[in-house]
Parts: sequence; structure tokens; C-alpha cells
Amino acid sequence: MSSSLLTELIESLQVLPGVGPKSAQRIAFHLMSQNRDIAKGLSSILERAAHEIGRCNLCRNFSELTVCKTCSDLTRDASTICVVENPLDVLSIEQGSGYRGIYFVLLGRLSPIDGVSAEVLGIPRLEAQLEKGGIKEVIIATGTTMEGEATAHYIGEIAHQLDIRASRIAYGVPVGGDLEFVDSSTLSRALASRQLF
Amino acid sequence: MSSSLLTELIESLQVLPGVGPKSAQRIAFHLMSQNRDIAKGLSSILERAAHEIGRCNLCRNFSELTVCKTCSDLTRDASTICVVENPLDVLSIEQGSGYRGIYFVLLGRLSPIDGVSAEVLGIPRLEAQLEKGGIKEVIIATGTTMEGEATAHYIGEIAHQLDIRASRIAYGVPVGGDLEFVDSSTLSRALASRQLF
Repeated sequence: MSSSLLTELIESLQVLPGVGPKSAQRIAFHLMSQNRDIAKGLSSILERAAHEIGRCNLCRNFSELTVCKTCSDLTRDASTICVVENPLDVLSIEQGSGYRGIYFVLLGRLSPIDGVSAEVLGIPRLEAQLEKGGIKEVIIATGTTMEGEATAHYIGEIAHQLDIRASRIAYGVPVGGDLEFVDSSTLSRALASRQLF
Repeated sequence: MSSSLLTELIESLQVLPGVGPKSAQRIAFHLMSQNRDIAKGLSSILERAAHEIGRCNLCRNFSELTVCKTCSDLTRDASTICVVENPLDVLSIEQGSGYRGIYFVLLGRLSPIDGVSAEVLGIPRLEAQLEKGGIKEVIIATGTTMEGEATAHYIGEIAHQLDIRASRIAYGVPVGGDLEFVDSSTLSRALASRQLF
């Protein structure tokens, strides 16, 4: 390589998810071929994000504010709380579902073997929030992995003891999906979770 | 979105080639979830690269030195020069071909309609280098687009007038490739460029 600084840039880009050696090369050369302001702008926003973005005090989602925009939005229904594994889940739900309640972001799922306890996921804070009252339903949207299910069960139990309704989002055949293309575990789940007319 | 800084980061990442809205989200959340030093490191290397990387005075490849490592490598054969369109081509040739000559990087191809003249591509400098003597062969490795071929022809003419051997890399069926999967223009090129035993 003609430039060790470029080599360093290419290697740094490879730590990004979905960016392999070839894409890292393409990105690096693209940034160097274009107006350098693009690279400088990206550098400065990365620097600011790394320093300023923390976690919302209420929902634990990423935010540069102590209370994030979603939590401070008074038009939202604060009596329904949706528990998700990570901030991307919030984004997906926000983008397409019409959900207008609030969130709680675990940033992980229970996995004692990896040292991820209820404390790490902020579950005691969620419990305190439920105890304070005002919440009528906890919608649990953690994943269907073993840890995701265990986390859902754990939070469901807490809600149950506090006499708060807890629900799990439905897992099943995607809407518009052909049965023949659906994997067998999704199909068994869809059959097991069947609902009466 | 709970954070406008995150939104800004996601939008900035989308200017990168091959990074769409979904990958930008994934990258941004990944960077925020991990140790922040990764984001800070990437920011600082981007900043340094944007400021320090210029073009080699000889081959015009990206480099933070006035003469790049390849050009100042005395073990290389400076009597053979390979003309390529961009720095990624140099990388590909370096990685796999055993070529030990030097390079000239055009960073583009002749396209008068887009304002890309011979001057923009540094071809007068290449001409001066050829006139100075010492170069025995110019290997032209520009692409097979119309502009790539025109550029190859233009440089070939210059070499011809200076009585320097000019060659074009071979385009044809990839080694190990099955004929049935090769597109028709590659096949016609392979037939037209056939060589006698």
C-alpha cells in the first residue's frame, strides 16, 4: 500500500458491522477521492456522538439528553410501556406500527453465563417504575432466542406480582407471507399461538 | 428518533458507498453500544486522513508522503510503468499479480463532456516522465468502458510517438471460468484477442 495512513483508515473501517476488507477499501478511497469535507464532517459527528450520546434516564435508550425526546413527549401514552432488547427495535416499532406508548430499552437480554444480570439490563429501574404506578400494561417485545424468552418471562413475573397486565408481542407467520416459505419453528409457533375466531 | 445527534450520525454514514439506511442504523448503534474508543479512534483517523493524505508527486496515487512508498522502493523495476484509473486498481494488481514495476494513477478517465481532460488526469506529467527516458514499456490497464478505451488509445499514441513500447492488459475469459457463464462481450473480446500457439 502506498500510504500507511490509508491502510490504517481501511483497517479502522473494518470494525464496522457489515464492512469487510473490500468495502473498507472502497469506502476509504471514496472518501479520499471526494471533497474532503465529507470525511471531516463524518469525523466530527463521530467524535461528538462518542462523547455526547448517553442513555435516557427513563427509558435507557441512546440520547444526548438526560430524558429523551420520546419520553418527554407528552402526547404519548405513558400508561403502556414496551420493553425491547435494543434501540434498533424502538426504531422499527416507531417506523411502522402506530404504537404510541413509551419504551424501556434493556440493551441486551438476560444471560447470567455472560455476566448479563437483571441489574446490567436496568430491570430494577423498570421494576421501580412499575411500582410507582401509572402503568397499565407492559408489552414485552424481546426476541425469541432462549435468552430473549427468559428475559420476557422474568419481566412478566415482575409485572404479575405487581398486578400489572403483561403481554408478549405475537410471533408467527409474517403478514403477506406464503406458508411454503416460512421456517418450521415459526410455523410451530404460529400453530401453538393460534387464536379462536 | 430519541436522539437528533444519532439521526445526524446515521445520515452522515449513508453517504458512504454501499451503506444504505438500514446498514447506517446498524453501524451507528453498534458504535454507540461498544466501547466508545472505537468511534473516537475512527473519528481521529478520518480527520487525519482527510487532512494529511495528498497525492504522490510521481505516480499520483494517494499518499501522505510527497513520494509514495511504492515509488521510493528501489527494488522495483522503474523501467515499466502501469497506467491505471484509480488507486483500488493498484491495490488489486499489488495483491495478486507479482507485478514489480511502477504505476501511474489517473484518478479517472478521459471524458471531455464531463470536463475530464488529459490535464485533469495528469497525462502531461506522464508524458514528461516518458520523455525523460528510462521507461521501456507502458502497460495500460484502464477499463473497457468507452472512456477507458479512449484513454488507453490516447496514452498509447503518446508512447508510440516517443518510441516507447505500449501494451494493453488482456481482457478475456477469467481463468478457471466456465464459458457458459461468461457474458457475450467478454466472449467476443476473448475471441478477437485470440493468440496463436
